Amino acid sequence: MRYHALLTALLMGGLTACATLSTPTAATAPAASTGPQRSTDEILKSTTAADWRTVSPENLMLMDVAGKTVMIELAPSFAPAHVANIRTLTRSGYWDGLAILRSHENYVVQWGDPNDEDPKLKRSTGTVNNQIPAEYERPLQGLDFKALPDVDGWARLGGFSEGFAAASDGQSAWLTHCYGAVGVGRGNPPDSGDGSSLYVVIGQAPRNLDRNITVVGRVLSGMEVLTPLPRGTGPLGFYEKAEQRAPLTRVRLAAEDPSAPRLQVLRTDSAAFAELTENRRNRRDTWYVRPAGYTNICNVTVPIRTAPTN
Amino acid sequence: MRYHALLTALLMGGLTACATLSTPTAATAPAASTGPQRSTDEILKSTTAADWRTVSPENLMLMDVAGKTVMIELAPSFAPAHVANIRTLTRSGYWDGLAILRSHENYVVQWGDPNDEDPKLKRSTGTVNNQIPAEYERPLQGLDFKALPDVDGWARLGGFSEGFAAASDGQSAWLTHCYGAVGVGRGNPPDSGDGSSLYVVIGQAPRNLDRNITVVGRVLSGMEVLTPLPRGTGPLGFYEKAEQRAPLTRVRLAAEDPSAPRLQVLRTDSAAFAELTENRRNRRDTWYVRPAGYTNICNVTVPIRTAPTN
Repeated sequence: MRYHALLTALLMGGLTACATLSTPTAATAPAASTGPQRSTDEILKSTTAADWRTVSPENLMLMDVAGKTVMIELAPSFAPAHVANIRTLTRSGYWDGLAILRSHENYVVQWGDPNDEDPKLKRSTGTVNNQIPAEYERPLQGLDFKALPDVDGWARLGGFSEGFAAASDGQSAWLTHCYGAVGVGRGNPPDSGDGSSLYVVIGQAPRNLDRNITVVGRVLSGMEVLTPLPRGTGPLGFYEKAEQRAPLTRVRLAAEDPSAPRLQVLRTDSAAFAELTENRRNRRDTWYVRPAGYTNICNVTVPIRTAPTN
Repeated sequence: MRYHALLTALLMGGLTACATLSTPTAATAPAASTGPQRSTDEILKSTTAADWRTVSPENLMLMDVAGKTVMIELAPSFAPAHVANIRTLTRSGYWDGLAILRSHENYVVQWGDPNDEDPKLKRSTGTVNNQIPAEYERPLQGLDFKALPDVDGWARLGGFSEGFAAASDGQSAWLTHCYGAVGVGRGNPPDSGDGSSLYVVIGQAPRNLDRNITVVGRVLSGMEVLTPLPRGTGPLGFYEKAEQRAPLTRVRLAAEDPSAPRLQVLRTDSAAFAELTENRRNRRDTWYVRPAGYTNICNVTVPIRTAPTN
C-alpha cells in the first residue's frame, strides 16, 4: 500500500506547459486542468517520431565508471568553445585512466586529472585551446527556448531549450544548475576553465552558480552510477587517497563508437511534453490530496529513449 | 586553483534575510548589500549562547546505519501525533534490526519493516495509535515563522520555523520537502501513515509532496551515510533482496542515551542567521562574477553545532 503511494508520488515529478516570454508570477500559474488525465505511458506511446530529437553522436559523451556507462549530452548551442575542447580531449583519450576526484554531499561529483595542479605530473591537454572565453550565457535570440508559466525566482524566466533546463532575462539565456547538469571547473579568472575538469550536480540545484561558471550539458542516463560514490572525506568532498578514486576506464564520443546507443530526447516544444508537464503540475491521482499547481524547471524530467529500430 | 574555485562555490550555498508576511516576488528581492562582508566563520564565532537553540533530547532520534549515526530532529510543533508515535516506536526498540528498504535516485531513501505488507510477518507496532489524523499543515498563528523575502513559487511564503524549512499561505504553515526532510510513508487514505515507515529526501526538493504527506522533521547530520547507499534495482528504488538492505542496528532517542551529543541549531530568527543568509544570497567573493540576488528555503543550510561544554 505504501509502495503504491510512493509509486504515485514518484510519477508526479513535475513537468509543465510552455508559455510566452512574459514574466510569470505564482499568481499566473494555470489552474488545475479538468477532465480525464492520460498516464505518462499513454502520452509517450501516442508520440510520433517528430516528437523526438535524436542526440547527435558528436554531442553524446559516454563515460565508463565502475563498470557502468554514464551518458552525457553536450550543448554546443550554449558552450561551443568548451564543447569543442571536450570533444578534442575525448577523442585524444585524455580522460581514459583519469578518475572521479570528488563526491561532495548535496553538491557535485567532479572528475578529471588528480594531478591537475602539479605542472610536472599533470596530463597534457594536447592541442586544446586553453584560452577560450567563459560561456556563461548567450543571446536568447535564435535559440529555441520555451518558458514555463511558473515563476522561477532565480531568473525572470525558467524553461527548456533542446531538452536542457535553461533560464533567461529576456535578452540572454543560460543553462541552469539543475540536478544532472554538467559544468566546467574553473579558477578565479572567469575564463580559466578549459573543459578538462568537469562536475555534475548531485543535490539540490545550486542555481546560485548560474552565470558564474560554464555549463556544457547534462547527464541523460547513469546518474545512479555517480551519486552513490562514497563522499570524499577531504575538504569539499575531495578524496584523500588515490585508491578512493573511481577510475574513468574509458571515455568516448558516440561518434567514435559504432556500438553506442542512439538516444532520443522528447522535444520540449512538443504537445506531448506540454501535456506531461501540466499533468505533473496538477496530479489528479487517487493518492494526491492537493495538486501543487506549480512546477519548476529543476523538478521536471525530460523523457529520453533509445531510438526505435525500424 | 580549481579547488579554491569550488571552495568558494561551496560556501555560497544560499541563506537569506527575514521578512514580513507580505507576498514576495522576484522583483522585491533585496538588492545586493554593500560594504565589508564577514565570513561564515566570523559570523558564527560572534554568536552568543542566545543565538542557539538546544535540540530537545526528546526530539533527537539517533539511527545507527552501516556503523555510523544519522541524527534526526523531530518537529512536534508540526506533527505532534506522528512524533508521539515515532517516540513510542523508538523507545520500544521497534526499529532495531529493521532496515533501509529503498534508495530511489534523486528522490528518497526509505526505512522500516521489510515485511510491512505481510500481516503475518510484519513486526508489531505495539501500543502506538494507528488511527492518528494526517498532519499536513497547522495554523500559522502561534508559530515562530520567519518568511524569506524571496519568492517561493510552491507557496505564497517560504521561510523557517525553529530551524525547519517551512511554507505558508498566510493562514496555515507546513514543513517543506527540502533535501534532508523526513516524512511518513502512507497509503492512499491521507490518514494511513502511523510513523512506522519513514523516508528522507535525497534529491531535488519534491515540493509537490508538500501538504500531501506528513513531514515529521529533518536530518541534522548523517545525510552522507544515507545518500551513497546503492540505488535499489526494484520499482521505485526498493531493494529486491534482503542482503541488499542496510540494517538499522540501533535506533534511539537522545533522551534514552546519556552518551548522546547535545546538538544546537542556530536560531533562524537570529541576526546571525539573517546576516549569513544575506551573505549567501549576494556573495562578494573574488570568484563570483554575478551574485544571485536570490535564494530559496531549500538552498539554505541552517548551521548546527555540538553544545559548548562549559
